[in-house]
Amino acid sequence: MNIVELIREKRNGGTFTEKEISFLISEYIKNKIPDYQFSALLMAIFFRGMTTEETSFLTKAMLYSGKVVNLDDIKEYKVDKHSTGGVGDKTSLILAPIAAATGVYVPMISGRGLGHTGGTLDKLESIPGFRTDLSLKEYKSVLKKTGAVLIGQTRDIAPADKTIYSLRDVTATVESIPLITASIMSKKLAEGIDGLVLDIKVGSGAFMKTMKEAAKLTGSLVDTAKAFNKKVAAFITDMNQPLGTHIGNWFEVVECINILRGEVKNDLYQLSTRLAGAMIFLSGKAGSIDEGTMTAERLVENGKAYHKFIEIVKAQGGDASFIQYPEKYPQSKYKENIISEKSGYISKMNTYEIGMASVELGAGRQTREDKIDPKAGIIFISKIGDKLSKGDTVAQLFSDSKEGIKQAKERLLKSMIIEKNKPPKIKLIKRLIY
Amino acid sequence: MNIVELIREKRNGGTFTEKEISFLISEYIKNKIPDYQFSALLMAIFFRGMTTEETSFLTKAMLYSGKVVNLDDIKEYKVDKHSTGGVGDKTSLILAPIAAATGVYVPMISGRGLGHTGGTLDKLESIPGFRTDLSLKEYKSVLKKTGAVLIGQTRDIAPADKTIYSLRDVTATVESIPLITASIMSKKLAEGIDGLVLDIKVGSGAFMKTMKEAAKLTGSLVDTAKAFNKKVAAFITDMNQPLGTHIGNWFEVVECINILRGEVKNDLYQLSTRLAGAMIFLSGKAGSIDEGTMTAERLVENGKAYHKFIEIVKAQGGDASFIQYPEKYPQSKYKENIISEKSGYISKMNTYEIGMASVELGAGRQTREDKIDPKAGIIFISKIGDKLSKGDTVAQLFSDSKEGIKQAKERLLKSMIIEKNKPPKIKLIKRLIY
Repeated sequence: MNIVELIREKRNGGTFTEKEISFLISEYIKNKIPDYQFSALLMAIFFRGMTTEETSFLTKAMLYSGKVVNLDDIKEYKVDKHSTGGVGDKTSLILAPIAAATGVYVPMISGRGLGHTGGTLDKLESIPGFRTDLSLKEYKSVLKKTGAVLIGQTRDIAPADKTIYSLRDVTATVESIPLITASIMSKKLAEGIDGLVLDIKVGSGAFMKTMKEAAKLTGSLVDTAKAFNKKVAAFITDMNQPLGTHIGNWFEVVECINILRGEVKNDLYQLSTRLAGAMIFLSGKAGSIDEGTMTAERLVENGKAYHKFIEIVKAQGGDASFIQYPEKYPQSKYKENIISEKSGYISKMNTYEIGMASVELGAGRQTREDKIDPKAGIIFISKIGDKLSKGDTVAQLFSDSKEGIKQAKERLLKSMIIEKNKPPKIKLIKRLIY
Repeated sequence: MNIVELIREKRNGGTFTEKEISFLISEYIKNKIPDYQFSALLMAIFFRGMTTEETSFLTKAMLYSGKVVNLDDIKEYKVDKHSTGGVGDKTSLILAPIAAATGVYVPMISGRGLGHTGGTLDKLESIPGFRTDLSLKEYKSVLKKTGAVLIGQTRDIAPADKTIYSLRDVTATVESIPLITASIMSKKLAEGIDGLVLDIKVGSGAFMKTMKEAAKLTGSLVDTAKAFNKKVAAFITDMNQPLGTHIGNWFEVVECINILRGEVKNDLYQLSTRLAGAMIFLSGKAGSIDEGTMTAERLVENGKAYHKFIEIVKAQGGDASFIQYPEKYPQSKYKENIISEKSGYISKMNTYEIGMASVELGAGRQTREDKIDPKAGIIFISKIGDKLSKGDTVAQLFSDSKEGIKQAKERLLKSMIIEKNKPPKIKLIKRLIY
């Protein structure tokens, strides 16, 4: 096979065979195809797209570039959730213990935060002692013991994705539905799951800004999951404001604790129990997603989910006393209130800007090398639809950096629009495909 | 300026400023932009195209990556002709002496053959002693002395084009109108010309297969020439059969000799005198292209063009005795006639296949490194529209390779279609834009 001919084929709108895709990926990761040819191919794929079949072949080639965890000795149903990422999106920490409390197994391999979005690993690592760098052997052993495990991507998992993603990142070829699909699915399928719940975010804080884009990606992800005989339920959910009220790694753990203790019933609670409900439904332990959701709510109510969370934290080396007594966690040097300059209703929140404000505070990364301050962040008192009087506190900022507070404050003030009339209610779950 | 942002800009259909294009080219040739980013950019340009203005900026950036020959001390008009290449296309050797015989100066920097198409340099070098590797200093001195000079691209001329072309070649990004335009025009404008005649080939032996593509490229070339204040006349001409009857480097010189001596008045003669006529018209030495063409015909008739050709050959070190006595040139070991298997009219010639047949004989190159046999080639006895009886000789093959003769014969037999009815006459000059 000739690489120039294959680039030309895709450039002209052709369709690759499984053999061709397998050749392209294996030769590229063996350094037999140079970056300059692969990047031209990626750009051709950006413009020409890929069929469902091609996307599955690509996923397969990337999946088998590394290890696929064999969880066959766990006879119970294994299900994970994947979100395309947003601001304040911390459902994993809530739904994993909920689902595990029902006897479903939740093997989760997650990522880190970059830019305006946070990452599950960073949130978990804000818990003193919590280890996310388990080996695949430890991963299986923790999973068997507690019913859930949350780790970072190891070098064994879909190495082709890592190599290709690095190239996409510097050649403006990230935003391609088939490439995004194969990147997500190759990593998820390597976990050893039977089913997958997808949470595709749409809105100002999400990678997909419009329902059209989000629906396209959702279709592609669902088709690919099905091509691998996995059960799947996909939610398209709102990211036009932060999910929940807390942003910043430790703050997000605190919000999850509050929810798992049954103390808070906000949008984060609703979405987490719904996603957990879908996981329970896929496992066969509930007859419908609604029934699964009711099970999830009951497990929060009776404290079983909260105790499962403490069990998971302990199993991964975390100091559970911080979960039991979050108030003992170190505090940021500086705290600043964001005060409403006028009366009215919050009608819009530029969620991308809010995410970037949290980065200014030290809660996120601009580049992969940046360090994170786990205690930095934002707590929102009000969100879209809430009524404000002039002088009301809208949010609180926390940081060790005075300059960070200043920058974040500026961004936050510009990111919110307050209007006279009450805005229409935001629909949290916009679509469900399964 | 950020290269990833610039790739994304073009990918999303944006338009570059002159500053941005100048940055991209200068940083790339300084190795400050890696190949993998530049190839992604080239693919984005392939899909999104470039405006006329962007194409001019690109041409300018590539032109000024090297030397621009200053011919200001030659007060007479300086004009060149560029052809997009085809099979049997040898007009340069005829029109350069014709134009020079009128007192117009013809500074020509040409290329080599690759794949199915031949190159002017290879043809000239088949003349024993003929040097095409003149320095820019020698180039000016020969031009001043004889009124024409034909050399190869030096390292000083548009080096950015050479670097970028190498990358395009291996990333399937050759076939892009703005990239082709900038590649051609940056080299032509470096010659120091006042005007340019363009011969855009269309058909089975050309890079542009359809009139639509050819017209698009023509428009782009003409607009760019005008943006640099050059006078221009562009012809779209037929390449659905070889031009003239001789293919192969020395054979093509022989056909040119026959035409310059006034002994042959075929399609090659018609096109060469017409292109020369356009050059004479652009110089102001004729009131119209028709008048210029008549001047050209007269200069063939009275022998002045032929003598100018001998003068040019001598000035560049060539042994003119071979021009005067072509029969003394060495002969190929093997000769084979192609015999018509049926009676009828030649209705189609797959000119690409004919070009590739000449490569099999040793007359062309598969890769840049291949050696050429100057005496190998094909002489056609009949072309499209000619009547054949079964057993008639259609063409003669010449090669030192028996295997080459066999391969070429197979290709040739498949490349021609003979039908009962006389096909419509081929229009040699399909369009003229000036």
